[in-house]
Amino acid sequence: MLDRARELDGADPLDGFRDRFTLPDGVIYLDGNSLGALPKAAVERVHQVVTGEWGEGLIRSWNASDLGVGWINLPQRIGAKIAPMIGARASEVIVADSVSANLFKLISAALTMRPGRKVILSELGNFPTDLYMIQGLQEQGLAEQRLAAREQIADAFDDDVALLLLTHVHYKSGAMHDMAALTNAAHEAGALVLWDLSHTGGAMPVDLNAVGADFAVGCGYKYLCGGPGAPAYAFVAGRHHETLCQPLSGWMGHARPFAFDDAYIPAPGVDRLLCGTPQVLSMSALEVGVDLIAEIGVDRLYTKSQALSEFFLECLSDRDIALELVSPSDSIRRGSQLSFRHENAYAICQALIARGVIGDFRDPDILRLGFAPAYLRFEDMAEAVRHLAEVLQTGEWQRDEFNQRAAVT
Amino acid sequence: MLDRARELDGADPLDGFRDRFTLPDGVIYLDGNSLGALPKAAVERVHQVVTGEWGEGLIRSWNASDLGVGWINLPQRIGAKIAPMIGARASEVIVADSVSANLFKLISAALTMRPGRKVILSELGNFPTDLYMIQGLQEQGLAEQRLAAREQIADAFDDDVALLLLTHVHYKSGAMHDMAALTNAAHEAGALVLWDLSHTGGAMPVDLNAVGADFAVGCGYKYLCGGPGAPAYAFVAGRHHETLCQPLSGWMGHARPFAFDDAYIPAPGVDRLLCGTPQVLSMSALEVGVDLIAEIGVDRLYTKSQALSEFFLECLSDRDIALELVSPSDSIRRGSQLSFRHENAYAICQALIARGVIGDFRDPDILRLGFAPAYLRFEDMAEAVRHLAEVLQTGEWQRDEFNQRAAVT
Repeated sequence: MLDRARELDGADPLDGFRDRFTLPDGVIYLDGNSLGALPKAAVERVHQVVTGEWGEGLIRSWNASDLGVGWINLPQRIGAKIAPMIGARASEVIVADSVSANLFKLISAALTMRPGRKVILSELGNFPTDLYMIQGLQEQGLAEQRLAAREQIADAFDDDVALLLLTHVHYKSGAMHDMAALTNAAHEAGALVLWDLSHTGGAMPVDLNAVGADFAVGCGYKYLCGGPGAPAYAFVAGRHHETLCQPLSGWMGHARPFAFDDAYIPAPGVDRLLCGTPQVLSMSALEVGVDLIAEIGVDRLYTKSQALSEFFLECLSDRDIALELVSPSDSIRRGSQLSFRHENAYAICQALIARGVIGDFRDPDILRLGFAPAYLRFEDMAEAVRHLAEVLQTGEWQRDEFNQRAAVT
Repeated sequence: MLDRARELDGADPLDGFRDRFTLPDGVIYLDGNSLGALPKAAVERVHQVVTGEWGEGLIRSWNASDLGVGWINLPQRIGAKIAPMIGARASEVIVADSVSANLFKLISAALTMRPGRKVILSELGNFPTDLYMIQGLQEQGLAEQRLAAREQIADAFDDDVALLLLTHVHYKSGAMHDMAALTNAAHEAGALVLWDLSHTGGAMPVDLNAVGADFAVGCGYKYLCGGPGAPAYAFVAGRHHETLCQPLSGWMGHARPFAFDDAYIPAPGVDRLLCGTPQVLSMSALEVGVDLIAEIGVDRLYTKSQALSEFFLECLSDRDIALELVSPSDSIRRGSQLSFRHENAYAICQALIARGVIGDFRDPDILRLGFAPAYLRFEDMAEAVRHLAEVLQTGEWQRDEFNQRAAVT
């Protein structure tokens, strides 16, 4: 399969982009859905922000357009670049804080827009922080969590549901929800919808406005390659901008932050989702990742991501490796990853990492392999499967060193 | 006064530390209370985090102790380094999110610890975000804001007050509250206390545990020199660790984040203040600033800061500059800054900036000069006053270019 892989790489229109990223020698990186690889341009950009903008520009860099910078506009500027990837208008997306904090803001916003309804409907086994933010509001007495199994979500609406909160591509299985159908179901029940695009944005296109989504959040450090803990983004449909109200009403979300008024007056539109001062170094790195992903283009990335995962499955089949696939077998119904269930998934994952094939393990028994299409080659698929075959067939994973559990992100 | 200044610099035990910071040529930087200067070591450290830990280590850097890193522990590790500067135990401080978000968490926590009480007492004209976070909780129906003038705070308690929230050193005037007396007054009224140390931490010592404070927050990007928008820190007295409950209950604050449970179980102690994934690049720069400030020592910094501001006032007097000082004239009652009221403060500030003397303006009429003692010299004081005298005496500030108002941080 290696020859075939090399042929596919040769014909791949995105092949040249791999050189725009730093990838360590001897590593096949199948964890870009946890932390995206480093765009080479981020090295120089962050250095310039530290030495030039911070060191030389000092406080002036918040605004000084003569220095070619203006940190104060980073949240809007990067948001506007993310917007076309998710079917949003530039004015509908802002970069701020973390996915978690943005979930809290938007769940709260939904509750104020649906007075008399307290239920937040979500999926059993959704990414934990999505559920934990509902629970935080539940502890405050403001929300009531309702969880339904994946296939029962559409039947779980009633007049108490204020918001449907789902992760578009499931972090563990990679299964993708039907965004249009579920948005529609929520609206028919009088509820709003908040899509978590953490495993979507930058890997595949979605069209939030085409499906009529109300809110979305997404992660900066996975497919957008924004760096460890990069800030997150949030989307609010333009029709809700006037009524949007959220409790993390910090000074950066004020209509006139530098008037230093005692009374909070929200800034227009999504700007009111800002809370405290943005973490500029992290945000600057994110911009480089977003620029690069935008240059490659999410449509092309999605096409390649599907081809990569299909080829990976072919390689498995070619080597007669029978692993239980928990991701949908139809590539149109999954995100840019493949997840396999195995009772020894942890040890197999560790053995692969020792060979330089970095995937990740998700409790209790999932081996999760992400196919970030911006920098992976078909050759990486063939080689990863070769390593996987060797790990399984030799029993290498049984070594003690691969069976000592520690905290793993 | 310049000779005298140079004498003082020659005798200053902290004089050598100035070289550990980058300061642009021709700049006298009196805005370290807005954004601290760049520690030279941060350049290399951030570069290493970007190229080595992110680029080469990739996802492994969250935990990999063999690489000498472990991003997952940064919030606790940096918190432990800040703790001795503010009279806290290492286990009582954590670095996370922004001052604003941490205020929201701790105000919420106080409300749950004082059931039946909804009033958050604060100061008229406190830093806006402190008030806006109270107002955010008020909009949720959970809190009620009560503001009192500075001198009437101690009389504003009653049985409805759950929490007293004050900024120890006022951002605009530099006036310092009597932390011990007000903490005591709050406790006598059955209320808790949350101190905002944004203009305190890294410039002067405070002893939170000696005064029995319950909570505190502080800023990473001012006197701690953590870089633009650096993450903030939060303190919770050990006696409250068991009962601490806050609504931004994100996955990083879970007892077992990587167990991916559907149900939130708070991590022990201050760890439960974590919400989303920390912004590692920004946090790494903060650590360098904290290390450097810790090395210099806040006691010595405070001594020098008082001497700097006293010398500045002497220089003013020597040049017969009569400006209305709104900061306390007694150095023991103010922080590391001097603020002056002038109807043309904006234009004067701009004229000074054009001369390389960077202070800041605070609406509507305050010229605020910060004396970050880690990198300022007595010579800077003398020279800044010379520039100020020239700006005032020549009427230079009246130029059109200095009177066009734009957003200023």
